[in-house]
Amino acid sequence: MTTSITAEQSQREQALVDLVVRSFDTCEDERLKFLMQSLVKHLHAYLREVRLTESEWERAIEFLTQAGHITDDRRQEFILLSDVLGLSMQTIAINNEAFANATEATVFGPFFVEGSPEVPIGGDIAFGATGQACWVEGTVTDTNGTPVPGARIEVWEADEDGFYDVQYDDDRTSARAHLFADADGRYSFWAITPTPYPIPHDGPVGQMLEAVGRSPWRASHLHFMVTAPEMRRLVTHIFVSGDEIGWKDSVFGVKESLIKDFELQSAGTPTPDGRALEGDWTRVQFDIVLAPEGA
Amino acid sequence: MTTSITAEQSQREQALVDLVVRSFDTCEDERLKFLMQSLVKHLHAYLREVRLTESEWERAIEFLTQAGHITDDRRQEFILLSDVLGLSMQTIAINNEAFANATEATVFGPFFVEGSPEVPIGGDIAFGATGQACWVEGTVTDTNGTPVPGARIEVWEADEDGFYDVQYDDDRTSARAHLFADADGRYSFWAITPTPYPIPHDGPVGQMLEAVGRSPWRASHLHFMVTAPEMRRLVTHIFVSGDEIGWKDSVFGVKESLIKDFELQSAGTPTPDGRALEGDWTRVQFDIVLAPEGA
Repeated sequence: MTTSITAEQSQREQALVDLVVRSFDTCEDERLKFLMQSLVKHLHAYLREVRLTESEWERAIEFLTQAGHITDDRRQEFILLSDVLGLSMQTIAINNEAFANATEATVFGPFFVEGSPEVPIGGDIAFGATGQACWVEGTVTDTNGTPVPGARIEVWEADEDGFYDVQYDDDRTSARAHLFADADGRYSFWAITPTPYPIPHDGPVGQMLEAVGRSPWRASHLHFMVTAPEMRRLVTHIFVSGDEIGWKDSVFGVKESLIKDFELQSAGTPTPDGRALEGDWTRVQFDIVLAPEGA
Repeated sequence: MTTSITAEQSQREQALVDLVVRSFDTCEDERLKFLMQSLVKHLHAYLREVRLTESEWERAIEFLTQAGHITDDRRQEFILLSDVLGLSMQTIAINNEAFANATEATVFGPFFVEGSPEVPIGGDIAFGATGQACWVEGTVTDTNGTPVPGARIEVWEADEDGFYDVQYDDDRTSARAHLFADADGRYSFWAITPTPYPIPHDGPVGQMLEAVGRSPWRASHLHFMVTAPEMRRLVTHIFVSGDEIGWKDSVFGVKESLIKDFELQSAGTPTPDGRALEGDWTRVQFDIVLAPEGA
């Protein structure tokens, strides 16, 4: 897949790159200048490497146009695009460098919503979302094992049909909430056992995945965002051990350390909060370790 | 602007790139696979080089979203973006390799419209567009100097207020037409003398240009698209010698060989078609040389 070009042609192409890079020399914001000049260099290097045809360029413009037109308050095709190219995950990796035993971060996803309801410790975040009940418990500590009392824990997930509340047309709030770790850094709540679901794939990103033979499915997961004073914000998921999608996760979010056992409990097994449920349920432990701010 | 990272961190980032690249291995279309895998490599290299922050990533998503929402049948912000990053011009350069004395290509721009009216040789393409009259004449030949009779010449330009017909709300067709070279490969038509104008800059691309201290102005130009059987399609402009914008053209379209003298003629100077105009006018010669198809 290499094309030989003449020295004259190569010189013309490089002269254009240089001209474009220099056009940003006037930028007084050094960071912005660096971001733009580096972007120009990398994108031109791409065009030159693949020898992009004019019809491929037109297809790219059409793709971006379609992505723009399907994007609205509830649908974010550009985040999906970033996700399926691994760019979201790489940005997370760059900004959450490995630090001691701190819990690994993963993608934020497009379905977080500000202003979720608060539940007490042991409360139920489902708010009517359907699915198998799941008891989640654990601790929040720093990397020395010291509890982080009062850490704010945001959790959100899809229902058993694979949809987040914001994907329904009825303004419901369900399967999302926040709670605070107790004085010993402990937390627990009821949720629903995560199940796999596809990312929205009726748009240009879905068409691209189909054209290249990739699956739109995400590995089963429960989202967490954990914040506490003087600690680095942690955005992550826990994944379900034995899940059928696993490493084929369409957005590359899976990390070995985030795969957890969701232990199946038969109907009637006494729950940690002393109840007997009519159906099967699961329980999972997730001990969260926060890196210090600035790590 | 370099950041040192640990070997462990670097390994994590590279492992992610490899995982994403491998996800396209299933693609049966070899060209598409190559395009996507190379895109992934270049975009990840960019993120890793600049150490993109999460808020910068969010800003990029917001930028693309805004570009998508301002784009409609009359406005194409993604083409503008490609243009101001020099990507359109680079694609043109890649697909129109230097070939003997063939006329150089330049950007297509967002304002070409299919189905322009036909004018005879010597006809007027203005159709009411305002501006100084301009006589354009020349020949269409191959690189051996042999005339290309019947070559189809599409021409289009902005009016003296800097707007193309499609930028008005009234469905007008003006300052655009097509004509055919005669049996000797000769052509001529009346147009209006090109003047500088800014690209549409009330959207995210305009905001970016302002943030980096770049001008949205384009050098004065007249668009040509020339096609003939067995010849490579030529998309180009001619630029006005002495133009105030010149090499600062916001889309990097200017080439030395495309800068032409638009000779000023005082009112009353007999025109090539034997008339006396009331105002000043200009005349320009543009001899077009087409490369063979597949060159």
